[in-house]
Amino acid sequence: MEGEAPAEPSLENMKKFLILISGRGSNMAALLKACRKGRLRAEPALIISNRSQAPGLEAARDYGVRTEFVSFKDAEAGEQRTIDLAREVGAEFIVLAGFMRVVTETLINAFPNRIINIHPSLLPAFPGLHAQKQALEYGVRVSGCTTHFVNTGVDTGPIILQRVVEVKPDDTEDTLSARILEQEHALLVETVNLLADDRLHVVNTRIVNISRN
Amino acid sequence: MEGEAPAEPSLENMKKFLILISGRGSNMAALLKACRKGRLRAEPALIISNRSQAPGLEAARDYGVRTEFVSFKDAEAGEQRTIDLAREVGAEFIVLAGFMRVVTETLINAFPNRIINIHPSLLPAFPGLHAQKQALEYGVRVSGCTTHFVNTGVDTGPIILQRVVEVKPDDTEDTLSARILEQEHALLVETVNLLADDRLHVVNTRIVNISRN
Repeated sequence: MEGEAPAEPSLENMKKFLILISGRGSNMAALLKACRKGRLRAEPALIISNRSQAPGLEAARDYGVRTEFVSFKDAEAGEQRTIDLAREVGAEFIVLAGFMRVVTETLINAFPNRIINIHPSLLPAFPGLHAQKQALEYGVRVSGCTTHFVNTGVDTGPIILQRVVEVKPDDTEDTLSARILEQEHALLVETVNLLADDRLHVVNTRIVNISRN
Repeated sequence: MEGEAPAEPSLENMKKFLILISGRGSNMAALLKACRKGRLRAEPALIISNRSQAPGLEAARDYGVRTEFVSFKDAEAGEQRTIDLAREVGAEFIVLAGFMRVVTETLINAFPNRIINIHPSLLPAFPGLHAQKQALEYGVRVSGCTTHFVNTGVDTGPIILQRVVEVKPDDTEDTLSARILEQEHALLVETVNLLADDRLHVVNTRIVNISRN
């Protein structure tokens, strides 16, 4: 009988999660890249897109991750199919990565405080679409990105983490978006690892403590 | 005949300004301190308080700056008196430093884009009273302070500068307020110097350019 090897982190004992995308899935790709490099403590088990032609689907397949197209034309049916697929692959949480649909109570109640979104502003400033453009038009000097749990509002759920990005005088929507996106990638990896480690506790709609194990 | 000395910055050729307070005037004191140390390129010519017993009045006198109590129970009359005093001392702009009154068009039209306010949040998030408490209750990870030109809205005018302050997990309203206040002092000095140097240009409600001379 050989000696027992110490328990090593491996995909086998990691929590599994879904990623929902609608487009190129650049934040999804950041998670898959981090996973490949061993920097993610949860396993992206399945990528779901509500658009069959989303470029992110091919990128996901390049990483060897299973992909599914799920129609959300009927939101209720789409969310139910998502729940079924999550159970099938054993996913414990869901990451929205540029998923351009508002999520309803069907999905939220199936994954209470287990669905996260990333938004390109310092919420509660500039919720909704075109957050970077909103920030430029308002004339703020700093913006950034936010990860939060998803509730039935638009970008109103409990904030998990935020990163700041300076707005430069000559910024355009493109240049500001690009600098924020860079921070989004890092922030999302960090947030998924907090979820993987069960370090997020929501009390009264706020995350009051990130316990350090 | 002796040689001409080069022009030196001195109080004599500096723009003058008013400071309006309601309480202890800690941001006012930061400006007066910076002025005494030669780090302010404008002269605080007069401190006005809408409360006769505001502790800030005594602090201002300690710095040798003229003070006036002006009643704002009748806002129109108070603002007209402020305009008269501003003209009397030759003030070119006005700084609201913890001035707990909403300013109306009377004063704003007399000093268009020449009245600034400092607010303890990253506007447009958390306008109005108790901004630090609002931020804690929302659960943001970063907050800060903002200087902006005053319009008839509540903390809605064009943003001049912003500084970021991290919100810590164990922050109370007091601890967060104290760390933000420290940044407010520096931000207000910086903002007054931009005004002193005519480096702020408002176009379409935004400050689109801070020209570097």
